[in-house]
Amino acid sequence: MTIRETPVLSNDVGVVRTQYFTFSELPLESGEKIAPVTIAYETYGVLNRQRSNAVLLLHALSGDAHAAGIHKGENDPGWWDSMVGPGKALDTNKYFLICSNVLGGCKGSTGPGSINPKTGKPYGLDFPLISINDMVECQLRLVDSFGIRSLLTVVGGSMGGMQALSWLVKHPQKIRSAILIATAARHNPQQIAFNEVGRQAIMADPHWKSGNYYEGPLPAKGLAVARMVGHITYMSDASMTEKFGRTRKNDVQPFKFTADFEVEGYLSYRGHSFVKRFDANSYLYITKAMDNFDASDGRPLQRALEGVKAKVMVIAFESDWLYPPYQSRDLVKACKLCGLEATYCKIDSNYGHDAFLLEIDEETHLIGHFLKKLYRDGEVSGEYDS
Amino acid sequence: MTIRETPVLSNDVGVVRTQYFTFSELPLESGEKIAPVTIAYETYGVLNRQRSNAVLLLHALSGDAHAAGIHKGENDPGWWDSMVGPGKALDTNKYFLICSNVLGGCKGSTGPGSINPKTGKPYGLDFPLISINDMVECQLRLVDSFGIRSLLTVVGGSMGGMQALSWLVKHPQKIRSAILIATAARHNPQQIAFNEVGRQAIMADPHWKSGNYYEGPLPAKGLAVARMVGHITYMSDASMTEKFGRTRKNDVQPFKFTADFEVEGYLSYRGHSFVKRFDANSYLYITKAMDNFDASDGRPLQRALEGVKAKVMVIAFESDWLYPPYQSRDLVKACKLCGLEATYCKIDSNYGHDAFLLEIDEETHLIGHFLKKLYRDGEVSGEYDS
Repeated sequence: MTIRETPVLSNDVGVVRTQYFTFSELPLESGEKIAPVTIAYETYGVLNRQRSNAVLLLHALSGDAHAAGIHKGENDPGWWDSMVGPGKALDTNKYFLICSNVLGGCKGSTGPGSINPKTGKPYGLDFPLISINDMVECQLRLVDSFGIRSLLTVVGGSMGGMQALSWLVKHPQKIRSAILIATAARHNPQQIAFNEVGRQAIMADPHWKSGNYYEGPLPAKGLAVARMVGHITYMSDASMTEKFGRTRKNDVQPFKFTADFEVEGYLSYRGHSFVKRFDANSYLYITKAMDNFDASDGRPLQRALEGVKAKVMVIAFESDWLYPPYQSRDLVKACKLCGLEATYCKIDSNYGHDAFLLEIDEETHLIGHFLKKLYRDGEVSGEYDS
Repeated sequence: MTIRETPVLSNDVGVVRTQYFTFSELPLESGEKIAPVTIAYETYGVLNRQRSNAVLLLHALSGDAHAAGIHKGENDPGWWDSMVGPGKALDTNKYFLICSNVLGGCKGSTGPGSINPKTGKPYGLDFPLISINDMVECQLRLVDSFGIRSLLTVVGGSMGGMQALSWLVKHPQKIRSAILIATAARHNPQQIAFNEVGRQAIMADPHWKSGNYYEGPLPAKGLAVARMVGHITYMSDASMTEKFGRTRKNDVQPFKFTADFEVEGYLSYRGHSFVKRFDANSYLYITKAMDNFDASDGRPLQRALEGVKAKVMVIAFESDWLYPPYQSRDLVKACKLCGLEATYCKIDSNYGHDAFLLEIDEETHLIGHFLKKLYRDGEVSGEYDS
């Protein structure tokens, strides 16, 4: 584990290392199973004696276990470094943070690119279809392995918010609260459609070869197109206009089908750099898990939340048109309808869906205060005191 | 020509035939030229003695010259059949309608799939880059060939609206009015980005072969993905939810990467049927022409409209997020700033950008009245009386 003996004083968590947790078998919602399963994870901060200060961070589609700090020999900090560290919203002087790579991922956790023990080769499409609930089942085992009876909170944006919702519905006794950011109880057809275009782009790439590409060239062009579509949906009309306008790149010939607008160059760069760090099959499996997710299995969400006692905070962003604020309001409404203590915060932001990674000041205040109220002076407050 | 001797009484234009207009050479905005140029067109109604009742219909990205009626042996009417015919908004008992396929298209007009006279083979990427203004230049020659001094109106949605704007800025003396529907003076980066994803999907298809695919298999998968992206942007979140919800298709196995949601099946159907009727290189050239279009070449639009006297009607749709109403309001503002008589009509519709092909009742009233005021009892009214 990466737990430090004493809290550090600077405001970052320093050099961290990814750990691995393996268990023998996971029965899946589909009826199939995966055996064995490895989950990559990182931790930041110190688990207290009562094991009451643990927070689970849940990453989005392209995220991983590396939420904060830097890896030895690398320069880029984790995906939520601005939120995780001494004195930050997710204060490592107070809380013990766990972040794991999802099942089906490609950053150390078992996924379609892992070796299938039955064949000695990568699973490819022999990997069974997985669900958001299956991902959470892995996280539950990881959390249990620390002897943590109850998490102070589970927090995530986008697909991370779906996992937090799954915790809320499936394992409410294991969490004291949930923070749902820029997410939805289920995808609407537009969200499914954008994911489907990405999948079709990958599967149209002849290098994809029905998922059996691990020993040859990668379906890089298809995955890049998928990522380009994604990036458009993560930004807003306004933020793109502010960032790119109609500026043209200087280094291209006019009147050729190269990227001559800056926005085209940006998408191309984003698409092609993604290919170096993400597995196309993982993209298929994870987006499908998102599309299939329905927090309440077709019932009204409030029915699925009956009896739940965790506190809930829902954060949405004004310009997020991929996970529009009305989906967050629907979540809050369902919580209220069954008597849950739920807070709705809409942040005015031009950043679109990306805002959950960028609106750090506001999120720091909101999440910082929310957790402080739950956890005071080293003790869990309110009805969950132990 | 398909002009009828006497007006018909039923409310459709019946069987029509595409005609072809050829001229020897077109100098392009880029400095290059195309020689010769053929423009496919259809006409409906009768040109009056004064040649004062001509209306030019301008099609969108995937449209063609076949705006109304049916072709012999076919069943599907033209793309705006509900608006064009005896007693309809574009009343063929009163007006003489012309609709031509754009330069660069693949429905009879010269485009990248046409034979390059220098090589005897299809142009492919040897076809020069074309602009919206180049398309309009072809239309001008076609209109001139009828001896029409001035068009009663030019009307189009989306890319058709861009062409109407080009007429307004480049040839204001040739038009009495312009009807701009769900369009913009220039693409913002989000609009460029969606087009670029489509182009990248086409160019990622190995069958594309840098545009030299005419003698082999077509880049069908890439073009289908491009069209799928397009279709998402043509609909709205609300209209997709209404049409598809999260309904699943019955005929698919669960847990496979086939289209199991109805919305996925719809996109797949739309994508693959598009491939049968559209040329991938035309898609590249036409979307690039849209992205490069700037009605006022970087100046404020009102500067480009100074001295213009045509009447303008701008129609936008509430749920159109591809060409949002603010772009239409900007058009009206520019018209007003230079004293043009301009009307802004926003139609409440859930159909998204597709609304311009679907909100027929409201468009019929708006366009019908607009034209009636301009053209009364066979005579052009107002200051343009001749």
